Amino acid sequence: MTRPRPLVPRPDQADTVRTVGEFGVIARVLARAGSARLAEVGPGDDAAVVATPDGRVVATTDVLVEGRHFRRDWSSAEDVGHKAAAANLADVAAMGGTTTALLVGLACPADTPTSWLEGVATGLADECAPLGAAVVGGDTVAAAPGSEAVVLSVTALGDLGGRRPVLRSGARPGDVVALAGRLGWSACGLAVLRRGFSSPLAVVAAHRRPSPPYAAGPAAAEAGATAMCDVSDGLLADTGHIATASGVVLELDRAALVAACLVPDGPLQQVGAALGTDPLAWVLTGGEDHAFVATFPAGTPLPQGWTAIGAVRAAGTAPGVLVDGEAAEAVAAALGAGGTGHAHFG
Amino acid sequence: MTRPRPLVPRPDQADTVRTVGEFGVIARVLARAGSARLAEVGPGDDAAVVATPDGRVVATTDVLVEGRHFRRDWSSAEDVGHKAAAANLADVAAMGGTTTALLVGLACPADTPTSWLEGVATGLADECAPLGAAVVGGDTVAAAPGSEAVVLSVTALGDLGGRRPVLRSGARPGDVVALAGRLGWSACGLAVLRRGFSSPLAVVAAHRRPSPPYAAGPAAAEAGATAMCDVSDGLLADTGHIATASGVVLELDRAALVAACLVPDGPLQQVGAALGTDPLAWVLTGGEDHAFVATFPAGTPLPQGWTAIGAVRAAGTAPGVLVDGEAAEAVAAALGAGGTGHAHFG
Repeated sequence: MTRPRPLVPRPDQADTVRTVGEFGVIARVLARAGSARLAEVGPGDDAAVVATPDGRVVATTDVLVEGRHFRRDWSSAEDVGHKAAAANLADVAAMGGTTTALLVGLACPADTPTSWLEGVATGLADECAPLGAAVVGGDTVAAAPGSEAVVLSVTALGDLGGRRPVLRSGARPGDVVALAGRLGWSACGLAVLRRGFSSPLAVVAAHRRPSPPYAAGPAAAEAGATAMCDVSDGLLADTGHIATASGVVLELDRAALVAACLVPDGPLQQVGAALGTDPLAWVLTGGEDHAFVATFPAGTPLPQGWTAIGAVRAAGTAPGVLVDGEAAEAVAAALGAGGTGHAHFG
Repeated sequence: MTRPRPLVPRPDQADTVRTVGEFGVIARVLARAGSARLAEVGPGDDAAVVATPDGRVVATTDVLVEGRHFRRDWSSAEDVGHKAAAANLADVAAMGGTTTALLVGLACPADTPTSWLEGVATGLADECAPLGAAVVGGDTVAAAPGSEAVVLSVTALGDLGGRRPVLRSGARPGDVVALAGRLGWSACGLAVLRRGFSSPLAVVAAHRRPSPPYAAGPAAAEAGATAMCDVSDGLLADTGHIATASGVVLELDRAALVAACLVPDGPLQQVGAALGTDPLAWVLTGGEDHAFVATFPAGTPLPQGWTAIGAVRAAGTAPGVLVDGEAAEAVAAALGAGGTGHAHFG
């Protein structure tokens, strides 16, 4: 059953969290929440209740901090909502599941405009709607005394549709490594924004709103993927997680990656040429596009949207990732990347 | 299937989030996470997978901000973990459910001692363990640049065990209003701490670690409760939520509340006398003890731990809460309370 919606006062651009109060914020945000197909109890009670037809629930949490994961001058409120949802929807898809509902925790300064929070709610709702998902609950609190930053914590729930979850630990020697989705676009867009530019729009837009190919996750599970994860830290770092969890070596093919990720004369090459950066650095170490990388038994017909980029070998001395036989760390260093992926505490 | 635990380095009191890094923090925290009875995939993958025997999942999120919801000089790390878990476990219980798993989002300054985070993890695990629940996933990120405050976002998942969820909207004229658990202890403990004291220990301990009677929630659902919520904002405020959602008046009986909540010569009276505060103010407007308030059809034998404190009447001109016939707002004002409950944005 869906809870009755509170009446929402007419939004005023000058309203802030302080002037409308906690319940005013919640009412305005909920007015934009949409409704989740499987929600039996939505926002407004002590907790939500969501149907789990599979008999299991997939659950994941991501925290976005203003000044670390987004900037209000680089991204609109809607962008931030899309991005926060995408990070979680991609995690659910990388298990082979489909997101059914979100919960959102929000700590924000009292002078945050309510219009900004409404924008975030709209972005969250729009990113979820194609899957039949929506925000079903959450909590809104004041930021720490003196803090100017918004902290947004999003939890996604998902359904496996009868499929077994695809873990990071299932890759086996002989498997094919495959990729679905874009790599390097978000990192390239960030490099552009950091230098004070806002074009080419394609990469800036990719940084503001990632477009993970969500359906590729369940399709890979259906096709028999042995291991999978989403690329949120960078391809080398995330294939490293599969290698470590599975006790194998993932050998990536540079030419296949270039063919899959670097369209000739595409925006990554153009920006790379302008900034003096090898665009392969973004492809190999950039996070936040939320592409999916998976391993499949050799001979498996790859589902639509998936491209082979390498193979799994037995770990000799240690698990790890190679690109054309060279260790990931050395490849990243040669490309001038600071490491194989994001370092979260600097 | 439970994920293999990473090897955990020997803790060092001087270690901080900066020195051990994101994955070091995660490894140390997970070493204290315990294991959830219903988790099929625990921490370490893109998402967790938890069994939902009921075919539905209860889900709720609470955000705790340092300096708003806890202070490191008033509460130990373990206390903060207990408190963060309790707020969520109580929300699940207030729907009639039992918590099965937690997800934890954490934004913390790079100089946070890892020993403090380990303490929080221990508190979370200890509060969940009696229910067979544990932390199954989460995210750890750096706090906003310049922010010194920890933000902790906890999501609880729960199972209804075949019971219908008990909403806030089901109270009907003629129902009995009943209470399970303590009221006013946390608020009294906070008043003591604010004045620089740390005794009587009973109320200070209640502020640091609430003790919600979790089993009372499912028991009330089983017994046919028509509406229920946990008391997190204060009894007058939270019964007000039931009154509004149900379109009724909740008439509370002052003598019954005093008998249920103010043991003669108990710590609330002692502290009240010392501070010149009527302890009934804490009982009526103090939050965070996470007692449960519910309505039952007249004549229902109340389950163990539940005490009648009033009755539901048809709303005349408007829904609301009365104490011995007097409006909640007037009662709160007469007791010198700032309002009927917490104001979250000051």
